[in-house]
Amino acid sequence: MSSAAARRDLLRDRARAAGLDAVLVTRLVNVRYLTGFTGSNGALLVPADAGRPDVLCTDGRYVTQAGRQAPEVELLVERVSAPALAEQARSRGHRRLGYESHDVTVDLHAALADRAPGVELVSVRQAVEELRAVKDDGEVALLRRACAIADRALADLIEAGGLRAGRTEREVGRDLDARMLELGADAPSFETIVAAGPDSAVPHHRPVDRVLERGDLVKLDFGATVGGYHSDMTRTLVLGEPAGWQREIYDLVRAAQQAGREALAPGVEVRAVDSAARDVVAAGGYGEAFVHGLGHGVGLEIHEAPALSQTAAGTLADRMAVTVEPGVYLTGRGGVRIEDTLVVRDGAEPDLLTLSPKDLLVL
Amino acid sequence: MSSAAARRDLLRDRARAAGLDAVLVTRLVNVRYLTGFTGSNGALLVPADAGRPDVLCTDGRYVTQAGRQAPEVELLVERVSAPALAEQARSRGHRRLGYESHDVTVDLHAALADRAPGVELVSVRQAVEELRAVKDDGEVALLRRACAIADRALADLIEAGGLRAGRTEREVGRDLDARMLELGADAPSFETIVAAGPDSAVPHHRPVDRVLERGDLVKLDFGATVGGYHSDMTRTLVLGEPAGWQREIYDLVRAAQQAGREALAPGVEVRAVDSAARDVVAAGGYGEAFVHGLGHGVGLEIHEAPALSQTAAGTLADRMAVTVEPGVYLTGRGGVRIEDTLVVRDGAEPDLLTLSPKDLLVL
Repeated sequence: MSSAAARRDLLRDRARAAGLDAVLVTRLVNVRYLTGFTGSNGALLVPADAGRPDVLCTDGRYVTQAGRQAPEVELLVERVSAPALAEQARSRGHRRLGYESHDVTVDLHAALADRAPGVELVSVRQAVEELRAVKDDGEVALLRRACAIADRALADLIEAGGLRAGRTEREVGRDLDARMLELGADAPSFETIVAAGPDSAVPHHRPVDRVLERGDLVKLDFGATVGGYHSDMTRTLVLGEPAGWQREIYDLVRAAQQAGREALAPGVEVRAVDSAARDVVAAGGYGEAFVHGLGHGVGLEIHEAPALSQTAAGTLADRMAVTVEPGVYLTGRGGVRIEDTLVVRDGAEPDLLTLSPKDLLVL
Repeated sequence: MSSAAARRDLLRDRARAAGLDAVLVTRLVNVRYLTGFTGSNGALLVPADAGRPDVLCTDGRYVTQAGRQAPEVELLVERVSAPALAEQARSRGHRRLGYESHDVTVDLHAALADRAPGVELVSVRQAVEELRAVKDDGEVALLRRACAIADRALADLIEAGGLRAGRTEREVGRDLDARMLELGADAPSFETIVAAGPDSAVPHHRPVDRVLERGDLVKLDFGATVGGYHSDMTRTLVLGEPAGWQREIYDLVRAAQQAGREALAPGVEVRAVDSAARDVVAAGGYGEAFVHGLGHGVGLEIHEAPALSQTAAGTLADRMAVTVEPGVYLTGRGGVRIEDTLVVRDGAEPDLLTLSPKDLLVL
């Protein structure tokens, strides 16, 4: 059985447990996860009864592609894909139809009800995202390749002297991106962050024409996409001899990041993982300067379940892929963030996928 | 007044006309259009009364960035931005609050109602998208730069001999992307399409390791992003002497594309523009092989209002930016698409922004 078919069967189990006749999947990334289809328009109907066919609906542009990427499912060709599938569900006699209430807009909900009168629409919440949080071996292999490309690109950039005073943030970012593509990435995971000097105090800074200067903290947050799977890594370094305050916050963030990584294990509350790192930062006197959550799941999306933060709920499970990325940001001066991508393992250390050194790199 | 402030005033006019006390904007690209803010989390409250402040809500990661990009609006810092603004609207005494029903999910709608009990939530439909369809001079200038970069990248690619038998689709795509970045693009507009031989019959093919061969039709669909604005262009060429069928469908698509461009004028029904091109393809006997709409608006999104198709409604207006891109696709053999980005002009020819030649290029 293909991995996509196995995933659809897991969703079928959930549908039956919830007393649903079928689930209508509308989030494109979830459709991709469940079928392999990567077009920009599509929805999927997964009946609870495994004896009935799964149906992918997309428009005329994607017929050839859908046949190639998702050969196991039936194909319905219509532009307004989700309402067409709701109508099909009704004509099959489905009475209770699961849908993704975090994805379906108010307008789309009205269209579904319109095309499938009498069918009860029941939220399945983030059922597919919950399945996606736990990775299979093929997914971990893609994440590992994506992380290895990012590691290699950074090492090559440094070895080639590409990280030096006089270059702009933008130049460094493009250099990193080009190296990742050259190494086989499909694309960067997101807009590469290169933030120098005071810019490094902006957690999600976009590279500009600021010139890197001696004494700057330089924060690099980037990743590669391979087969749809994203890597995510941040490293911070100093151009020249670090000032005392720079070394202080670097060492603190590094200790916090290690504490966060060490807290990763199946069964642990995600909030407790965040706390493990956050407590270290707070004890060092910089609690107010750690302005975001500790990390997030990563896979087909750069941010996905589970969130590791004080406002999140739930526990870790075997084979969840997450980032651990504490930071300290001092507005107007500079900031440090250190981030790895890891896979939680049962009865073992988490599997560290980003292997670039975390010593304070002085260039 | 900044262009963003002028846009918010246009939205304010609409709010007043609809009897709303304020509009809650949740679509991120619309928030960007109305403020300049480019973070990945944010919502905007625009009161109908210009005497009251507009409020942007985002989370702690983006405080510095929001202050820099959107200095004219008030800032509220909270992670769940839209519900926080709904609550603020209620505490200001707003009774009728406009919201984007095509963006707000069923779950978010419930959260808004929960945080703002007693406030009536009224759909403003795609009010901001309608404003966005008509470009101001600054936007046209960015589109023009984005198109010029794509033109230059293609010309350089050809001049450097980068389009030749023996290279893979992926190599050609990366070469084009690298050239656009080198020329100053922020990013490619979307995943560059390079489709050779039978792949050219797939309207939205992703580049693979297929090697370009003599006799292939090669379809290149790509664009550059500059300051958030996207260019979009398709050219199709032949490697070697064209076969009769290749020239036949090329000439037909070219004539259809010209007819589509000539139909662009303020006041014309979008459906009539589609028909102008589609009728040419149908008269040539390939109507069934033109499987998508004629074109789409382009700007902060690669696909935005207005759609040019048989299922779309509405008319063109002065300063709308659109693509015109008929295609003929013969499964298993090959396909041709020719696409330009243009700006509709009152009392003048449409302003052609993509200037690459449209003769059948034989390499």
